[in-house]
Amino acid sequence: MKASSAKKAKREFPPEATLDALFDELNNAGRWGRDDELGTLNYITAQKRIAAASLVRTGRALSLARDLNTLQSPNNPSPVRHTMCYQAHYPIGAVDALTLDMHGFALTHLDAIAHVYRGDDIYNGRRAADIALATGLTFADMLAQKDGIFTRGVLLDIAAARGVKWLTPDDGVHAEDLDAAEKRQRVRVESGDCIFVYTGLQKRESAEGPENLGQRVGIMPDAIKWMHSREISVYSGDCVDAFPNPYGARYAIYFHAIALAAMGLILLDIPALEPLVELSKELGRSDFLVTMAPLRIKGGTGSPVNPIAVF
Amino acid sequence: MKASSAKKAKREFPPEATLDALFDELNNAGRWGRDDELGTLNYITAQKRIAAASLVRTGRALSLARDLNTLQSPNNPSPVRHTMCYQAHYPIGAVDALTLDMHGFALTHLDAIAHVYRGDDIYNGRRAADIALATGLTFADMLAQKDGIFTRGVLLDIAAARGVKWLTPDDGVHAEDLDAAEKRQRVRVESGDCIFVYTGLQKRESAEGPENLGQRVGIMPDAIKWMHSREISVYSGDCVDAFPNPYGARYAIYFHAIALAAMGLILLDIPALEPLVELSKELGRSDFLVTMAPLRIKGGTGSPVNPIAVF
Amino acid sequence: MKASSAKKAKREFPPEATLDALFDELNNAGRWGRDDELGTLNYITAQKRIAAASLVRTGRALSLARDLNTLQSPNNPSPVRHTMCYQAHYPIGAVDALTLDMHGFALTHLDAIAHVYRGDDIYNGRRAADIALATGLTFADMLAQKDGIFTRGVLLDIAAARGVKWLTPDDGVHAEDLDAAEKRQRVRVESGDCIFVYTGLQKRESAEGPENLGQRVGIMPDAIKWMHSREISVYSGDCVDAFPNPYGARYAIYFHAIALAAMGLILLDIPALEPLVELSKELGRSDFLVTMAPLRIKGGTGSPVNPIAVF
Amino acid sequence: MKASSAKKAKREFPPEATLDALFDELNNAGRWGRDDELGTLNYITAQKRIAAASLVRTGRALSLARDLNTLQSPNNPSPVRHTMCYQAHYPIGAVDALTLDMHGFALTHLDAIAHVYRGDDIYNGRRAADIALATGLTFADMLAQKDGIFTRGVLLDIAAARGVKWLTPDDGVHAEDLDAAEKRQRVRVESGDCIFVYTGLQKRESAEGPENLGQRVGIMPDAIKWMHSREISVYSGDCVDAFPNPYGARYAIYFHAIALAAMGLILLDIPALEPLVELSKELGRSDFLVTMAPLRIKGGTGSPVNPIAVF
Repeated sequence: MKASSAKKAKREFPPEATLDALFDELNNAGRWGRDDELGTLNYITAQKRIAAASLVRTGRALSLARDLNTLQSPNNPSPVRHTMCYQAHYPIGAVDALTLDMHGFALTHLDAIAHVYRGDDIYNGRRAADIALATGLTFADMLAQKDGIFTRGVLLDIAAARGVKWLTPDDGVHAEDLDAAEKRQRVRVESGDCIFVYTGLQKRESAEGPENLGQRVGIMPDAIKWMHSREISVYSGDCVDAFPNPYGARYAIYFHAIALAAMGLILLDIPALEPLVELSKELGRSDFLVTMAPLRIKGGTGSPVNPIAVF
Repeated sequence: MKASSAKKAKREFPPEATLDALFDELNNAGRWGRDDELGTLNYITAQKRIAAASLVRTGRALSLARDLNTLQSPNNPSPVRHTMCYQAHYPIGAVDALTLDMHGFALTHLDAIAHVYRGDDIYNGRRAADIALATGLTFADMLAQKDGIFTRGVLLDIAAARGVKWLTPDDGVHAEDLDAAEKRQRVRVESGDCIFVYTGLQKRESAEGPENLGQRVGIMPDAIKWMHSREISVYSGDCVDAFPNPYGARYAIYFHAIALAAMGLILLDIPALEPLVELSKELGRSDFLVTMAPLRIKGGTGSPVNPIAVF
Repeated sequence: MKASSAKKAKREFPPEATLDALFDELNNAGRWGRDDELGTLNYITAQKRIAAASLVRTGRALSLARDLNTLQSPNNPSPVRHTMCYQAHYPIGAVDALTLDMHGFALTHLDAIAHVYRGDDIYNGRRAADIALATGLTFADMLAQKDGIFTRGVLLDIAAARGVKWLTPDDGVHAEDLDAAEKRQRVRVESGDCIFVYTGLQKRESAEGPENLGQRVGIMPDAIKWMHSREISVYSGDCVDAFPNPYGARYAIYFHAIALAAMGLILLDIPALEPLVELSKELGRSDFLVTMAPLRIKGGTGSPVNPIAVF
Repeated sequence: MKASSAKKAKREFPPEATLDALFDELNNAGRWGRDDELGTLNYITAQKRIAAASLVRTGRALSLARDLNTLQSPNNPSPVRHTMCYQAHYPIGAVDALTLDMHGFALTHLDAIAHVYRGDDIYNGRRAADIALATGLTFADMLAQKDGIFTRGVLLDIAAARGVKWLTPDDGVHAEDLDAAEKRQRVRVESGDCIFVYTGLQKRESAEGPENLGQRVGIMPDAIKWMHSREISVYSGDCVDAFPNPYGARYAIYFHAIALAAMGLILLDIPALEPLVELSKELGRSDFLVTMAPLRIKGGTGSPVNPIAVF
């Protein structure tokens, strides 16, 4: 086990030219029409929804979101602002207001497809300079996902497949890790699924303190290819892009760049996975119905969500 | 039909003492324990969720939310603020921020149970002065609903049951309207259901311009009693409290006050019902799975949501 | 010196009845007309401005504000939010947005006269329930001070007059302290002056860490009376209300309550006094021109300001 | 008079190459040291402040700011957000919060020198890509102006000099207009002065409705040169850049670009000039003391201010 873990720990990054080739290979531009703004959500068909609903067998529901984080810290420089508002001198109710920075670490959120570019390239052949305006995104914005996500969720416990409590910050998740997790859990990721990749981050943070944002486990390029071949609709996990990485601005966040700008693969950032791992163990199941419903933000680059797993 | 409609148009409000009696009669304080913060969400059992999932037969999903409204108007004095934020001189992605006033008319939202009081009375025997602090609600806040709502939704088309396009602003929805809608639609509201009461408001606004907030169709006290007896988990609709009404501060928003503070009945405000009415007609069904997942706002008085109906 | 200091350290609070009497004695209601919203700014006459301008003898200008504090801490729970905003993909300039909680410790600010009440009493015989609305203050709001403050400023160094580096948190500033500071500095506070009371807080914080907000030096009731008799226009200082104090809600912040609600005395909170103390020493002068210009906030309860001293 | 006005109405824009030459000619880079962040505020010497203070002869003070504009409109898409905040169930005071977009038309504000670039060029030889970061400006930000502006103000009534009520939107302010205004008013702009250029905009808006932002009177290039030769410290006026103009992104706002990025000339946007014109007439004076004190915003691109004229 240790040897295997050690072997993985040394991640290797392909040259930027390989990423360029991968970007082209995985590019879904035109796949669902020149005006498609849904990307991999197209994999979630009506049949897929019906099948996902049938996964509800115990009726247990579980939130996969973190509490909105109002506490400023090095990992949360722009915390959520929650303000109780005045109604009347003798109030008959309480009202409040929220200010949310959509990305970062303060909240569980979905990315709009046009949130990240590769250079000037945005999903489906669009140019960032045309799409990202001061008034909001004009294409593949958050509103495109307004009817929500309702599909099969699959937890992939990479840490367990590796036989470790958690992956160290210099590690990466490879295609073979995803295969190994499937095998160990006797589950298979299918077209339209939303996967939840777990590397034990919260356990590591409990033991070792908050993650250093410059030193992070990441999804490796071959794993992105795996996701493409499996036709997943949504990626979520406690790791995203690896840091540090050798790439310039074009691929500084290479997974985001390829997933969003080439594949139109929806990303769900900052989920709370520990409770899911626990419930999955308790029920002896890795798959479940998962629902997410982004706010209808015209022009929005992302949305806070509270994804709910129902077993 | 016309005669019946005319008869209803003249709504009559019982004296405040009757509301006091109703408040006591419908009071669920202690029903699910002295520390319960879920109120009528307790009606949504694991079995209820399983049964609700089985309503997914066509796989059609539909958002029941309105777009976040960023346009200021007399009916939207505190619009949503959407700001594109600066990333870098040569950006590789777009980020943004939202500021949301939780209540009002700018967004579809769930109420926390402690959002409204009857005088100083909050759900489950609590006192507003103890619960509503400058830092947020300390009981029955939005976070209490963190695992979301997953239940059977039932559309009740009051306008159709009355045989009118829409109810006029001086009208009210009575228990017999709810009965009539059930009868016409051959559906029965059951324990744990979320009901969507439709009076044709959007059609009226399309024809006659924005609603005058001081002149509004409302849920009448006998209809609240009906909801209690049917054990609904969530009320939603295009009408809530009737205005004008004869009550002082204690019952100025009498439906909110009795629903939230006595019953712990969850309210979903400002839904978009026209598309639901249309889809319901198209599919010939009044019931469906409905999911809602409020943001995990500790101390919050409400949450923006995008409720999704799946047929 | 020590003995004297020790004697002062034990501050004694008069009973609430004495404060009631003081409130009545110092009440300026009606003094400048029943509709006056300027309070003690009435002491700043055109002649006073001319005289104040003549204090500009060296042309040295100094800010008396602190930097807007964007860092969250126990003493700054609602920090200023500063956001760089998006302009264009290839920007030709930088723009930003600020969110400011007016009171608290994040910024140097002026209080509107109606900011604080004594029970339901607001300046000039008004009632809080009539004035403090959800849309803003309808009387003695920030806008009332729109033409700014332009008057003589006088630094009163209480710490130096006591012969200590700083006053300890259990201490209070009495009328005799103000007299002693005047005597030591050979300066006399006159009608219309803005006083800056210095007790060495920043030095204490540098040595002992951030102030405990529950343990604070305060202005004692006899000092409020002194301010009334001297007809000062504005009070500023590194101490305001003493904490802990024995009073209930009515006088929980007794200095604010009497100054604002009875006297209409303008308060400038959270000034930066150390640089003023230094420059005052360097130039051998305790008086100077001071200017402040609050933002024109209709209904506002306060305004961020950057007071400028010119010697 | 009419003929003269007609002649001016046809403004002519020099080619972009001329602006490049002007940018170089007026460039103050290095003039006050390589690290200077004050730009033309360097013209305000201690002697200048003393002289400015001596202009206070009547003691009349007047705000030159507009009220913060909380009403959304085509000319104010991001209005100021003013929120009354909850303090307690039985409050003893009122508190509030403000959200301000610094630029645009919602508020009278000062520009930081690094607010606008010419291509990538920022004042004093800096590059925008190095200075304009997501966390704020790192050079020539708002904080640089922390000690405020205290100088002689001079009103230049261009409309009166032209003998018209207001300039039409296709007009421009030329150097000879400034000369003519000086001559008519018997005043001379001197080193360190802050000028207020009045073209009658508010009168025009009262008569003809809100200004079309795409059709605006502007400062012509020869007038910028005039300002440089007169060594003004601050420009303010009811016109800034002319629209439409023939320039690309580099000079889309050519006056801002040359003033800020070349000269380091401070700009005060959106002043309220009508009351100044009236008071100036009443007192028969065109010059006065003017004070402005921007908020101490580290990294800020601008600041709301309430400039005060004292005669």
